[in-house]
Amino acid sequence: MRIAVDAMGGDYAPFEVVKGALWASEELGDEVVLVGVEDKVREILDSLEGDKKFIDVVDARDVVSMDEKPTQALKREDSSISKGLSMLKRGDVQAFVSAGNTGAVSATALMKIGRIKGVLRPALGVLMPTLKGRSLLIDVGANVDCKPEYLVQFAIMGTVYMETILHKERPSVGLLTIGSEEKKGNKLVLDTYPLLKEAPVNFIGNIEGGDVPAGAADIVVCDGFVGNIMLKFIEGVAEGLYKLLQEEISYRFWPKIGMIFMLPMLKDLWKDFNYEEYGGVPLLGINGVVVIAHGKSKALAISNAVKVAKYFHEQGGVEKIGRRLSEGDGN
Amino acid sequence: MRIAVDAMGGDYAPFEVVKGALWASEELGDEVVLVGVEDKVREILDSLEGDKKFIDVVDARDVVSMDEKPTQALKREDSSISKGLSMLKRGDVQAFVSAGNTGAVSATALMKIGRIKGVLRPALGVLMPTLKGRSLLIDVGANVDCKPEYLVQFAIMGTVYMETILHKERPSVGLLTIGSEEKKGNKLVLDTYPLLKEAPVNFIGNIEGGDVPAGAADIVVCDGFVGNIMLKFIEGVAEGLYKLLQEEISYRFWPKIGMIFMLPMLKDLWKDFNYEEYGGVPLLGINGVVVIAHGKSKALAISNAVKVAKYFHEQGGVEKIGRRLSEGDGN
Repeated sequence: MRIAVDAMGGDYAPFEVVKGALWASEELGDEVVLVGVEDKVREILDSLEGDKKFIDVVDARDVVSMDEKPTQALKREDSSISKGLSMLKRGDVQAFVSAGNTGAVSATALMKIGRIKGVLRPALGVLMPTLKGRSLLIDVGANVDCKPEYLVQFAIMGTVYMETILHKERPSVGLLTIGSEEKKGNKLVLDTYPLLKEAPVNFIGNIEGGDVPAGAADIVVCDGFVGNIMLKFIEGVAEGLYKLLQEEISYRFWPKIGMIFMLPMLKDLWKDFNYEEYGGVPLLGINGVVVIAHGKSKALAISNAVKVAKYFHEQGGVEKIGRRLSEGDGN
Repeated sequence: MRIAVDAMGGDYAPFEVVKGALWASEELGDEVVLVGVEDKVREILDSLEGDKKFIDVVDARDVVSMDEKPTQALKREDSSISKGLSMLKRGDVQAFVSAGNTGAVSATALMKIGRIKGVLRPALGVLMPTLKGRSLLIDVGANVDCKPEYLVQFAIMGTVYMETILHKERPSVGLLTIGSEEKKGNKLVLDTYPLLKEAPVNFIGNIEGGDVPAGAADIVVCDGFVGNIMLKFIEGVAEGLYKLLQEEISYRFWPKIGMIFMLPMLKDLWKDFNYEEYGGVPLLGINGVVVIAHGKSKALAISNAVKVAKYFHEQGGVEKIGRRLSEGDGN
């Protein structure tokens, strides 16, 4: 298969992206097409060692910045995002991977590729580290004002993802709210609860914010407003704690010594929390394989995101979502 | 003044509550009335050293458990919560402090004491530790489905609290959403933005989840659904990290040694994050001083919550909220 990678997307693009794409092409033996400013990309490729027979470059002169508005990005036909997604639409490639502007990729994918039949709203999930492994928090940004039917579809699409990529059997679905009883929550949650009980997913009921890090559900369903705030919040907390520790340690002597003893353990722990291993999550509900990698992705994360794209394609993730949704409708 | 304390509320009640109330009465020289199962409370008091001339006990035979439903708790006329709030209503005391079931205290306070004139919905805030000190996150649970007007009032009431208790001049107000531009957010946020711009608060615009731990605003306004999920989420993360570190350290040798070097620093940091120092936050919008302390409050937190109650009363926090709200209405 052929997989297009947005060479210009992400905080460490293009260097780390090119490197990660090369690694993936070597390891998988599948053709990886880097879409981006060609001379820059070729220059980086030339500087890297490795077997380049499975890597290709397609020129895209325009670059969408990380904080550009999706509506503006849509107009940029020469951007790496637009070109890569056009290739996917034409069937030149079977998947597209980007660590770039998530809003821009989502909006462009929706416009160019469109939704799977039956999907009301595509959704974006992230894998959150928990005490029991990883949980998928869905949606984290694509949809701010949701209807109960959207949340049910997020649960179904998340289930397909967890089965297909994380090989979880009957992954559990929790509805994020402010109390564990059936009658606790805002109007959206109260209206969603009975629908989830009837949906073709392993619904385990309501879960609270504190249950998420405990790993109470494999899939945590919420609207994109709440999900995005939680995601940004926890990223901010991690960043803040890191800064604080760094500052404190900088002007103290004994903690520096202590840190030396603790580093190996902290490194092990970090591995469990690191998103690099998981690469990225497909934009669920789009009628093609579009994988969103973290904006801070380095080569390893990019390479793993390419693998996610390959497996999601090979295992027919998109078709599975279509089928599962029509089961849900009783069609 | 006289302050009633719910002797039976909180995970460490009655012992830690009685101890904290005694400390406060000694330090403030104000009368503190413990409301709870009298023989138990007196037994604890007898076991404690200290000057007991400012402490009193009022018998309440019934205890509302931490996970009881507010609607059920409302019927328990003999509970420490009901009795304490009845005393406040009659003017026997000027404030009520509880570390008990927050929903029950809120519902009972609303029923017995009622709202300040002009208040649409009372709200509960929590002080979140940030890189710049403390921010008030409001609302964190009392109101799940909000109207824009409620959020504006949360901002105003939060401002009064930050001025009165934390002595912040012109505390900044941020509207919690998923992007920093004016047009980003769900319907509630989009409708609230223009109202906040006109409100008598120091509105600095939208803030994202990641800006909260950075301390971007002194007051972070959100609906109670989002606020409660964030609060529980971060508590769950802290608990999870603690468990994980404890587990990892238990079967490793060197990190144990490292920990010894780091303990003094960690203790210092912990002080910054500890809620005990802040005691509690008044239930804002209730027509009387009702302070909610953390459910895990020990003596120090209770004692500080009693102080918050005293200052909020002395500085006329309730009256200030009433005045500020009518300014907001242009009355």
